[in-house]
Amino acid sequence: MEITQPTLVLNKTVCLRNIELMSEKAKRHGLIFRPHFKTHQSIEVGNWFRNFGVEKITVSSVQMAHYFVKGGWNDITIAFPFNTLQHAQLNEIAALANINIVFDNHVGAEQLKNKLKNEVGVFIKITTGFKRVGIAHNAFSEIDRLLDTISLNPNFKFKGFITHAGHTYQSKSKNEVQNIHFDQLKKMEALKERYRNKYPDLVISTGDTPGCSVSEYFKGTDEIRPGNFVFYDLMQQQIGSCNIDDIAVRLHCPIISKQSYQNEIVIYGGAIHLSKDWITNIDGKPLYGRVVIRKNNEPILLNTNEYLCRLSQEHGVIKVSPNTFNAVEVGDIVEIIPVHSCLTAHAMGRYLTTKEATISMMERF
Amino acid sequence: MEITQPTLVLNKTVCLRNIELMSEKAKRHGLIFRPHFKTHQSIEVGNWFRNFGVEKITVSSVQMAHYFVKGGWNDITIAFPFNTLQHAQLNEIAALANINIVFDNHVGAEQLKNKLKNEVGVFIKITTGFKRVGIAHNAFSEIDRLLDTISLNPNFKFKGFITHAGHTYQSKSKNEVQNIHFDQLKKMEALKERYRNKYPDLVISTGDTPGCSVSEYFKGTDEIRPGNFVFYDLMQQQIGSCNIDDIAVRLHCPIISKQSYQNEIVIYGGAIHLSKDWITNIDGKPLYGRVVIRKNNEPILLNTNEYLCRLSQEHGVIKVSPNTFNAVEVGDIVEIIPVHSCLTAHAMGRYLTTKEATISMMERF
Repeated sequence: MEITQPTLVLNKTVCLRNIELMSEKAKRHGLIFRPHFKTHQSIEVGNWFRNFGVEKITVSSVQMAHYFVKGGWNDITIAFPFNTLQHAQLNEIAALANINIVFDNHVGAEQLKNKLKNEVGVFIKITTGFKRVGIAHNAFSEIDRLLDTISLNPNFKFKGFITHAGHTYQSKSKNEVQNIHFDQLKKMEALKERYRNKYPDLVISTGDTPGCSVSEYFKGTDEIRPGNFVFYDLMQQQIGSCNIDDIAVRLHCPIISKQSYQNEIVIYGGAIHLSKDWITNIDGKPLYGRVVIRKNNEPILLNTNEYLCRLSQEHGVIKVSPNTFNAVEVGDIVEIIPVHSCLTAHAMGRYLTTKEATISMMERF
Repeated sequence: MEITQPTLVLNKTVCLRNIELMSEKAKRHGLIFRPHFKTHQSIEVGNWFRNFGVEKITVSSVQMAHYFVKGGWNDITIAFPFNTLQHAQLNEIAALANINIVFDNHVGAEQLKNKLKNEVGVFIKITTGFKRVGIAHNAFSEIDRLLDTISLNPNFKFKGFITHAGHTYQSKSKNEVQNIHFDQLKKMEALKERYRNKYPDLVISTGDTPGCSVSEYFKGTDEIRPGNFVFYDLMQQQIGSCNIDDIAVRLHCPIISKQSYQNEIVIYGGAIHLSKDWITNIDGKPLYGRVVIRKNNEPILLNTNEYLCRLSQEHGVIKVSPNTFNAVEVGDIVEIIPVHSCLTAHAMGRYLTTKEATISMMERF
């Protein structure tokens, strides 16, 4: 298939290797592997996980749960403080599959009183330091109050405690990730210890991509839910979760203009394709993507002095050396390695796999 | 219609007023009004322009031109250095409507040799200082070379010079915008003067939203192409192009969590809904949106000390005062005024109008 416009190309070989490595790690440590599907949002990519024994998945919205129920998944955690306004949609999917929802406050849990028609599993969201959502790991009176509310709803089945150590994404080294990961596990282990007599089946669910990628220590958790590892990206590579070669998606973009007076190449490919997430480059400036060009049909990864440095709605600007400037021409295709593959995949809405098939994602919302 | 998940609400009254004011300004100055439709990307919103006499439009991609041709528009400029790999799609739409394309280099123009089946208008892209794409306004040998290439293709009809003073978006005051606007017009006027004998019908096309919004001086241009003004946003309000009340879109989001220990409210509404564009707030930190809450069903615009301060894929975090914290509850809807409405509209893919109809946008790509 000829590429004529911004196209997200998915390297199936790399993607399968990422899935295999993570599922083997989960097996090695006796963990439930419940991968987060919000990164790829695709029934077809989801099916690739089945060969590795995956039966339980994580999603981030009721709509996404609905999409994967249609794709034949039967055990789904919606890992997001439940939006109680969507109780009708929850009833719809909970009639078809085993659904777990998440609460970090008793108000939401109370709002579902008399609203549910089917049993749903409930996890209590805990924060061990990320502090976006979640009850603090040691705020026992809040936890107990929520447990009481849960126990009063006959359609709620308490499953355990869930957390996301999202602060690993701010780490600048594997060591830093390991520290956060270890600290999180210790706190969750103590929580399990406190509540295991009353709830002998309770599950501790953890697992951000950085922690799951760099660590071989998982004592204190029962289940991991990494998502981004399926594709990885430059943010993960900067943290140390992966190498450049582990990144499974690249946005292929036509060159539409060259500005010789400032050695800039302009591509058709902008914020609506890549998203505007960036990392800080070695020169202290925002980097929106790294660049692969072809020279005599050989791929060449440009170094970090030559990078995607500006994005507008549909334009991307690549700063290059005079040599690179002269090596490419208007009408050539360059490949952009994305900073945040979850947002790029969501923005693009479909993939071209390296097996040359176009595969689809869920509809927007 | 009850809102239960992130929903982009379009205030039709405000939007129509924005269209009316800009179309009247164009009439007052005897200008062709060719609004950019990449902001709303909707046939239905596009139709609202027809009552104000608009017959010519601007788009940013061949796909968008195709969508609006299907919507009955017959005079369309694709204001983006033409991506020559899409020549087949260009032939398809140029058979159905009058299409203008843009070049800023002779290489692209040469690549269409023997590729076109129908006449297309051609504008030469000029930069007067923005320096993203375009030939410098005084690089006459480059301009002449491109004019020669254009003249050799019997399906090219040279139309004129087009520019986008995108550097007005970096302005911090109306004065700064006026200066850039005036400078641009002077440069384009000189260009017209130089080439008008050879091309007596040549059109000068300008018109970013800041310049068109703040200025009443348009000598030197024949056509304006603002786009964002249809909705406006916080970026435009910060520049001085509009007031808060002129912003026609708001993202309505449910509250899903409250973090009392840091006075933060968490909404279902993140990067995939709003995009990650931000402006610098008065406290020097990134602001991703301003917030309207309801108190006794009355809308209250929070001040800039209480704002959308962090975004992840689907979460948004609003920093508030203790008073505001206590005035809202999980399950309430808050309204977010977006930083960059073009990207928010694109991300959301449809609108709920205040007349309670859901209206559609073009498909993703």
